Amino acid sequence: MTGDDERLLEDLLEGKHRALARVISKIEDRSPGYRDLVSKLYAHTGEADVIGITGSPGAGKSTLVDKLAETYRERGETVGIIAIDPSSPFSGGAVLGDRIRMGSTIGDMDVFVRSMSARGTLGGLSTATADAVKAMDAFGKDKIIIETVGAGQNEIDIVRTADTVAVLVPPGSGDDVQTLKAGILEIGDVFVVNKADRDGADRTVQELRDMVAMDAGDSVSMSGGHHGADSMAMLEDHPDDEAHADWDGGDTDAGDTDDWVPPIVETVATRAVGVEEFIDELENHQTYLVDSGTRAEMARKRYAEEIRTLLREDVHGLLEDELERAGGVDDLAEAVRNGETDPYTIADELLDPVEASLAELERD
Amino acid sequence: MTGDDERLLEDLLEGKHRALARVISKIEDRSPGYRDLVSKLYAHTGEADVIGITGSPGAGKSTLVDKLAETYRERGETVGIIAIDPSSPFSGGAVLGDRIRMGSTIGDMDVFVRSMSARGTLGGLSTATADAVKAMDAFGKDKIIIETVGAGQNEIDIVRTADTVAVLVPPGSGDDVQTLKAGILEIGDVFVVNKADRDGADRTVQELRDMVAMDAGDSVSMSGGHHGADSMAMLEDHPDDEAHADWDGGDTDAGDTDDWVPPIVETVATRAVGVEEFIDELENHQTYLVDSGTRAEMARKRYAEEIRTLLREDVHGLLEDELERAGGVDDLAEAVRNGETDPYTIADELLDPVEASLAELERD
Repeated sequence: MTGDDERLLEDLLEGKHRALARVISKIEDRSPGYRDLVSKLYAHTGEADVIGITGSPGAGKSTLVDKLAETYRERGETVGIIAIDPSSPFSGGAVLGDRIRMGSTIGDMDVFVRSMSARGTLGGLSTATADAVKAMDAFGKDKIIIETVGAGQNEIDIVRTADTVAVLVPPGSGDDVQTLKAGILEIGDVFVVNKADRDGADRTVQELRDMVAMDAGDSVSMSGGHHGADSMAMLEDHPDDEAHADWDGGDTDAGDTDDWVPPIVETVATRAVGVEEFIDELENHQTYLVDSGTRAEMARKRYAEEIRTLLREDVHGLLEDELERAGGVDDLAEAVRNGETDPYTIADELLDPVEASLAELERD
Repeated sequence: MTGDDERLLEDLLEGKHRALARVISKIEDRSPGYRDLVSKLYAHTGEADVIGITGSPGAGKSTLVDKLAETYRERGETVGIIAIDPSSPFSGGAVLGDRIRMGSTIGDMDVFVRSMSARGTLGGLSTATADAVKAMDAFGKDKIIIETVGAGQNEIDIVRTADTVAVLVPPGSGDDVQTLKAGILEIGDVFVVNKADRDGADRTVQELRDMVAMDAGDSVSMSGGHHGADSMAMLEDHPDDEAHADWDGGDTDAGDTDDWVPPIVETVATRAVGVEEFIDELENHQTYLVDSGTRAEMARKRYAEEIRTLLREDVHGLLEDELERAGGVDDLAEAVRNGETDPYTIADELLDPVEASLAELERD
């Protein structure tokens, strides 16, 4: 680690906001040295409560997040916010801009907003988000909020890495509650019907209650939801992600008898109505996570996943180098087409020396 | 390679159906020695035309595939069929059973049907399908048909590895043509409105024509569809597949001026109406692929992808071994949780020796 980075780390740990901002920029940009920095952050993490907030556009997420942050501040807690916007080509763009115009909590330096967009791969966004959470945690934030702009599968995958996931459902969604079921609903630890003063809010609340009750009834046979240690297992089972599927780690369910039943909270974020109750339910869930041992179990699964993701990313880089040294993948593919070799032979030729040296290392 | 496997390979190359069946079983099961077998197959491949057929359930795919195979047979061509059913827990189960009951072409040994289900990972299914195609190609099949039971994203990803993709659209789909647009339509080289004697067929044909015409109009600015060398690039761009996203190979578009415009064929598969015309359009597309140089380009991209997929699968296995030697990922994750180490340090410790020995090899 360079002297500059060491000072940066010290400044961050001492609570200098400018240092936190610079570290997160380095994480986003994957600039040289960011790995060593993040590596050093880990020892200072584990205290923050990480809250994910998602829901369809227009549900009022950013207003609710602002009020949530404001209320935490009034209670003396420090807050960091990471806004995820995979569709945006800019980092710190529209979302942050809108927030500043809203003139809510953003001028207050105890709330730190950082908007992250998908610069590189989506896998990269997920890793970068987790690393940014680490930076805020090491900085000393009490509450870290991951907020998604949309509610696509990728955003769901990111937000579910939080300890507690709140799903915002707009009132009068009616049929939407049914369609939501497939994706968003199963990750909710707390449901929020925001804009609860609007028509149809009561029906939406009732539909959510019915759904949660049905799910709780099912929980013996299939423990759905993000409610506990299953969340990482669900990530691993993501059908479209072949990389995850390759790694089927031992999936030991904690098997707690008192499963968490997601509460449904009504809020009117624009008038800060219901925000205290929302916070109470978030705290209840955090208490449940600790008392049931789920929080420790989730942390273990998350770290295992992080180890594997990093190894995979690094080794893919090594493979790409090896392919280059072997003449480049295009030439190799052409050789296969000409019947001179085949992919299995190429893979063996490239990896046999690696295997041999690993075996050698083992003997030493 | 064992003596048994050598004889098996000889028998397959001599055209013994029993040997082909056994090789495909080995591929499906990933039984010991399957890699060497497949490796040896490559040199004997490249002659078959590979046709993918997909479409929503109930579109009449299996009936059309049967008639297609029958007609090819009458023309003196040999046919292999691979039915993909990722949802089925059994291999060679329902699909094959139904076919046998239908009593169509299946008793005829020049048509070889093999139903593949998702035994392992979906990545595995994709690789296994490609390997089974190789086995049929080496065996000497003139036409190989990959048929999907459903039309989910994973099945689409598999079927689009064919040279030519036919998409079946049921008549009277109306709005469906619009919704299809997002996924299936963009991979179609030939569209088939089956059950063309039903109400609404004319409208469906017209809607498809409009859509294709619109797409052809767009093709200068964005060349959509499977129509040529872009298909593998689209695979690489699959937003949910982080592994693919890591490998962004050079995406050189052939840039042919005469883009393929997908024809729309009407069939009544139950009465074999329109099957000859369907075959003519498939042949037209194969001719286009060869004449435009697209077929060679597709082959190169496919081989490059196969090389990378194999390397990735193999190296993930090596990493899992290394993780075990390092004490197992669960213990490592627990050490991270206890603040004793961190994922970046673990990744470096595991991979530094690998990198060092690769550098060593390089010097020798």
